[in-house]
Amino acid sequence: MAPSETTKRRVTILGSTGSIGTSTLDVIGQLGGRDAFEVVAVTGSGNIELLAKQARAVGAALAVTADESRYDELKQALSGSGIAVGAGRQALLEAAAAPADWVMAAIVGTAGLAPTLAAAQRGADIALANKECLVSAGELFVDAVAAGGGRLLPVDSEHSAVFQALEDDQRHAVERIVLTASGGPFRTWSREQMAGVTAAMARAHPNWSMGLKISIGSASMFNKALEMIEAKHLFDLRPDQIEVVVHPQSVIHSMVGYTDGSVLAQLGCPDMRTAIGYALSYPRRSALNVERLDFAKLSRLDFEAPDEERFPALRLARTALGRGGLQGAVMNAAEEAAFHAFVAGRIGFLQMAEIAEEVMEAMAGWAAAVSMDDVFAADAEARHRAGEIIAKKEMAA
Amino acid sequence: MAPSETTKRRVTILGSTGSIGTSTLDVIGQLGGRDAFEVVAVTGSGNIELLAKQARAVGAALAVTADESRYDELKQALSGSGIAVGAGRQALLEAAAAPADWVMAAIVGTAGLAPTLAAAQRGADIALANKECLVSAGELFVDAVAAGGGRLLPVDSEHSAVFQALEDDQRHAVERIVLTASGGPFRTWSREQMAGVTAAMARAHPNWSMGLKISIGSASMFNKALEMIEAKHLFDLRPDQIEVVVHPQSVIHSMVGYTDGSVLAQLGCPDMRTAIGYALSYPRRSALNVERLDFAKLSRLDFEAPDEERFPALRLARTALGRGGLQGAVMNAAEEAAFHAFVAGRIGFLQMAEIAEEVMEAMAGWAAAVSMDDVFAADAEARHRAGEIIAKKEMAA
Repeated sequence: MAPSETTKRRVTILGSTGSIGTSTLDVIGQLGGRDAFEVVAVTGSGNIELLAKQARAVGAALAVTADESRYDELKQALSGSGIAVGAGRQALLEAAAAPADWVMAAIVGTAGLAPTLAAAQRGADIALANKECLVSAGELFVDAVAAGGGRLLPVDSEHSAVFQALEDDQRHAVERIVLTASGGPFRTWSREQMAGVTAAMARAHPNWSMGLKISIGSASMFNKALEMIEAKHLFDLRPDQIEVVVHPQSVIHSMVGYTDGSVLAQLGCPDMRTAIGYALSYPRRSALNVERLDFAKLSRLDFEAPDEERFPALRLARTALGRGGLQGAVMNAAEEAAFHAFVAGRIGFLQMAEIAEEVMEAMAGWAAAVSMDDVFAADAEARHRAGEIIAKKEMAA
Repeated sequence: MAPSETTKRRVTILGSTGSIGTSTLDVIGQLGGRDAFEVVAVTGSGNIELLAKQARAVGAALAVTADESRYDELKQALSGSGIAVGAGRQALLEAAAAPADWVMAAIVGTAGLAPTLAAAQRGADIALANKECLVSAGELFVDAVAAGGGRLLPVDSEHSAVFQALEDDQRHAVERIVLTASGGPFRTWSREQMAGVTAAMARAHPNWSMGLKISIGSASMFNKALEMIEAKHLFDLRPDQIEVVVHPQSVIHSMVGYTDGSVLAQLGCPDMRTAIGYALSYPRRSALNVERLDFAKLSRLDFEAPDEERFPALRLARTALGRGGLQGAVMNAAEEAAFHAFVAGRIGFLQMAEIAEEVMEAMAGWAAAVSMDDVFAADAEARHRAGEIIAKKEMAA
C-alpha cells in the first residue's frame, strides 16, 4: 500500500442508492473522492443497476443488496470489477461491521436499526440519517455508540442544525431547542380536506426532494414527531425543552435557545449535502459546491405555531416523550405499519395517526428497554396490533 | 480583605449613564451585583444626578464626569459616600486606566477613543460598544488590545451576533458575514421625502431604544456603514466578505456564512442586555432575565437588499474599506461633524452623507496610521473640512 493511502478515511454508506446515499457520494466526490476516501462498502436494496454503478464509480471493496433474491443480478452487474458482492440480511450486517472509520446510516425505517447498531458497536463514527435508531432504541443506541468509541453525528437537517448551533462548552446554558417544520403540503388544509389525501398528493413536498417515507411523514408531520424524540436522545434534553415551529420556507433548519436569551440558528438552502458534509468533515468544516443563501432574494421567512389538532402526530410525540420507556419504538412501528397501509390505499391519510395512537394506548405500560431484544419485541407487537386495526378499518371502509 | 472579595470581577463602566451603561449595570445586578463584581469606576458626562445615583447603588470606588465644569455638582451629590470623584479629560483617562478586569467602553463618538485605548493598554478585557475605536483607529486599536493582553469583546448587537456565530476553530471556513440592518424609520421613503427629515423624526427608531447619535445613524444607515468597517477589523475580513441585508424586524442580529453553505445566525429580542451579558460572562453564557423570542408570535421576518442610492452611507463604507488607510477615521469624523450640524438644524438629513463623501474624496490620499497621533490628525482635519463645507451649505440654504 502506498503511504498516501494509509491516511485515507475509510467510509461505508448504508443505503447508498437513496436520496441521502447519493448525496453522500456527491459530497465524498467534492471532498477529494478516491484521493481522500476509501469506500469500504455500499449497500442498497431494489435498485441494483444504480448500486453497481455507484460501487464501480467509487471503487468500493464490497457492494451488498438487502434483497437476497437479487444476488445474482448484482453479481452479474459487478462481474470483472473485483468488487465483492453480498445479499440479504446477514450480508448487510457484515457490510455494516466492516472496518470503516465513518458510516453513513441512511437505510430508511426499522430495517436500518440492526445494521447501524452493528456499525456503532464496531466503533465507527455514525452519521445518522436513520430516525428509528434513536426513536426506537433511544439510550440503548446512544450507549452502543459510546461503548464502541465512535461519535454520533446527526444528518437530519434539523438535528444537524441543532448540532451546529450547540456550542460544546455551553451545554450548561441550553434552555431549549426549536425544531422547524415545513408543515408539508397540507399545512393550511382542514382535517376534512386531509381526509381525502392520497399517497401521490402527500408525496409532493414543497421544499425538499426526498424519499416516499419521508415525504409522507412530512405531510402528516409524523416526521417531526420522530425528530422530537430523536432530539431528546441526541442532545440529552427534557421533553419541555423541545419546541416545534412551522416555518414553511425551510430556510432556518433549527435553533438552540440559551439561558441568556440568545438564539443560535443554522440556515441554508434545502440541500442535504451541507449537513452530510458537516458530518463527514466534523469537527472541521469543508468547502462545498452547494447553493448559497441570498437573503435579499429570500424576501421573507414565516413562522406559525403547529396545529396539534390537524397534525396529531406532534401530540403523540409529546405523549411518547412523557411516558418514555418503549413508547418511541411503539409509536414508530405502528406508524410505519400504518404508512405502508396508507401507501397501499388500504387506509386514509388521517387514519395513520389514529392507528399509532390506538397502539400506543394499548401498549402504554411497556417499560423501558433493557436490551435490543425488548426493542424488537415492542416493534413486532406494535406492528401486529397495528395490522389488526388496519384490517378492521379496511373492513369498515 | 475577606477571601470572597478577592474573587470578585473588577469592572469599570465608561459611559455608564447612557443606554448601554444603564443596561450594563442592570446585567451586573442580574449576574450577582456586589457579591460577584467590584465596580472600580463609573463615568458619565451631563447627567450628574444619575451618575451619582449609579455610583452609590453599585458602591463604585470612583465616579468621573467628562464635563470639567460639573465637578462640584458631582462632589456634592456624592458627599459622605466615600466614593472618589473626578472631572474632565484627564480624570476620565485615569478612570479608564484604573485596574479593572473588564471595561465597558460605552462612551459615544470619538470622545470614547482615548479612554478606551487607555483601558486596553492597561490590559483590561474591553467590552466594546464604542464604534469609533475600530472605525478610526482600526489595526492600531486591535494591536493595542492585543499588546495589553486583554480580550476584545464586541457589544454592538450585530458584532456580538457575529462573535457568537463564529466558531473559534472554524475561522478557516468563514466565507462571509451578513450584517442585518433595520433600515431605520425611513426604510421605504424616497430621497425626496428624506430631504425634509428633521432630527426629531430621525430619532424614532422602530425596534431599539437608543441614544440620539445611534438613532440618527440608524436612520441614515451611517451606523451600518461604521459597523461594516468595525467588522473588518474585529473579525479580520476582506471587504468583499462583508454583506449587509435590510431586515426590518431586527430579530436576526447578524450571521456568518461558511464555505460549506451553512449559515449560523444569532437571534434575540431587541434588548442589548443579551449582548452585554455575553461580553461580561464570556466565554461562558449566564442566565439573564430578558424576554425570550416566541417564533410563532414573530409570524414573519423580512429581508431586502439595501438601497445604496437612498442610503449612500453604505456606498461610502465600501469606498473606505477599499481605500483603507485613514479613510475610516475621515469618514467617521466628517459624519460626526455633519451629525451635530444636522441636529442643530444647520443642514438637511441627506447632506450628512454628501459632506462625508466630499471630505473623504478630498482626503483620499491619506495613508494608513502609524500612530494614534495620525488618527487624531486625520480626525481633526476631517472635522475642519466638514465644518467648512457645513458653513458653505448653510450660507447657500
